[in-house]
Amino acid sequence: MSLLTRTEQALITYFEQAVGVGAPPRLVAAMRHAVFSGGARIRPQLCMAVATACGDDAPALTNAAAVSLELMHCASLVHDDMPAFDNADTRRGRPSVHKAHGEALALLAGDGLIVLAYRVMLLAGAQHSNRLWALMDNLTQGVGLPDGIVAGQAWECENSADLGQYQRAKTGALFVSATRAGALSCGQSPEPWAGLGAYLGEAYQVADDIRDVIADAAVLGKPVGQDALLARPSSAQALGLEGAIAHFDHLIDQAAESIPACTNRELLRQLVQREAVRLVPKDMCQGYLQAHATPLSGRANAAH
Amino acid sequence: MSLLTRTEQALITYFEQAVGVGAPPRLVAAMRHAVFSGGARIRPQLCMAVATACGDDAPALTNAAAVSLELMHCASLVHDDMPAFDNADTRRGRPSVHKAHGEALALLAGDGLIVLAYRVMLLAGAQHSNRLWALMDNLTQGVGLPDGIVAGQAWECENSADLGQYQRAKTGALFVSATRAGALSCGQSPEPWAGLGAYLGEAYQVADDIRDVIADAAVLGKPVGQDALLARPSSAQALGLEGAIAHFDHLIDQAAESIPACTNRELLRQLVQREAVRLVPKDMCQGYLQAHATPLSGRANAAH
Repeated sequence: MSLLTRTEQALITYFEQAVGVGAPPRLVAAMRHAVFSGGARIRPQLCMAVATACGDDAPALTNAAAVSLELMHCASLVHDDMPAFDNADTRRGRPSVHKAHGEALALLAGDGLIVLAYRVMLLAGAQHSNRLWALMDNLTQGVGLPDGIVAGQAWECENSADLGQYQRAKTGALFVSATRAGALSCGQSPEPWAGLGAYLGEAYQVADDIRDVIADAAVLGKPVGQDALLARPSSAQALGLEGAIAHFDHLIDQAAESIPACTNRELLRQLVQREAVRLVPKDMCQGYLQAHATPLSGRANAAH
Repeated sequence: MSLLTRTEQALITYFEQAVGVGAPPRLVAAMRHAVFSGGARIRPQLCMAVATACGDDAPALTNAAAVSLELMHCASLVHDDMPAFDNADTRRGRPSVHKAHGEALALLAGDGLIVLAYRVMLLAGAQHSNRLWALMDNLTQGVGLPDGIVAGQAWECENSADLGQYQRAKTGALFVSATRAGALSCGQSPEPWAGLGAYLGEAYQVADDIRDVIADAAVLGKPVGQDALLARPSSAQALGLEGAIAHFDHLIDQAAESIPACTNRELLRQLVQREAVRLVPKDMCQGYLQAHATPLSGRANAAH
């Protein structure tokens, strides 16, 4: 079974179990919309991939850890899309949750998903109390204060923010949680896996910044040009588009190098490289640079 | 030390510890505003009172459980006050969080407080893994789906809702969590204490409905007349004001009766009765009923 299939099956199973019976149907519909809308499921797959490398001796716990990471990610997307932040009408090519279900239910769906993530861990972890404590602590660090994704989003509300700190918190933190969770769900030390999460998380944020500049909305499934419009910290703004692409490539190399010795190291390295191609399609970058070439842009001219 | 003093000290200690160092300062300020604004601290005090009746052999764990309940309550108030819901400009006589800090930070402050509540439990519970699991599960049930306060709030978004189910979820659930947490933090069975939380929680919701009709905004510290304005389910709408007052009195009696045999049963009964007087001041009810007397209102006429 592919990791994506395993992720989708675990999401369906744990979502139903954790939501329970008798909840307000519109709230459940909004939460379902947030979770089952064709996400790439990178974080849970990363967790499962690391768990596989670590022996995966408690697969139900691994699945719960993977699901809880994805639920937290979905919660953050629902709240980030709301008018108070990005005011995005679309997400993954569909109406965003607040567009489809209204702001009140979007607000509650995000809250409900955060709590649901913990509930999923509690459902699976009763028989692994030590691992459970570590996994919940790890999840909480990836989401909360001082360095998790909630803090990352909040840096957008400050007058000034360090770009690296912002990116590490906004995206990197939950990637670090994901790789660490894979090891923790097997009762192993998470530290050797933190680097992979950190490099990959930063690479994703840089890729997001790049795509916000080069992609069109139809391909991306959400509005583009938002970073400049909303004056958000962005690698593409700070380094220029070519600088951001070079930085992305470097981060992917570092991510691949950081993978510790394990039986499926080569498989994991390939997975990282495949993701890089998917995230920042080089032909799209070239096309954009050629179309926007100026005499000041050495690399763009060289590409002609 | 009074339970209120113990609560305030525990809140200060755990808030600082759980927020950590380096979080975005405006987010921390918004969260601080939400938590340290003179709340009545009923839920944490209730938790501590039950723990005292159960021996309170792990007071740091009791404190953490009490704090986590209050943080969840504060999170729900921040989000409930936002324009998508009550659009309340004031809370406890001060500007609401979104009025003082903006909608974006109010949204994140609520999210941050939910996660902080779990972090507080994790900080305190590492040495009590069995109790910790039960306490976190109990907290999660009080907040999440299908019957917690997030679900309760979501019933307001349905076309129709059962008044009892709505009230049990919106307010009752976290009160039940509070009394149960007091027992669980001592490693004791929570079931004998669930009734107290349920009756008291329902009484609080009815009291809220009553005060929404009779109080003026200056006394209440938040806008009044909101239930009718927002067409929310309300005891005062469903039963009439006098019916709601009689229902409140009955619930308080049931709460007092439900307290199981313990060394400080009489003290707990007095605490419940004192809260009843504070919640629904009878002279204010009489004054309102006299001022709004109509020939159809027997009790109001009899009071003349």
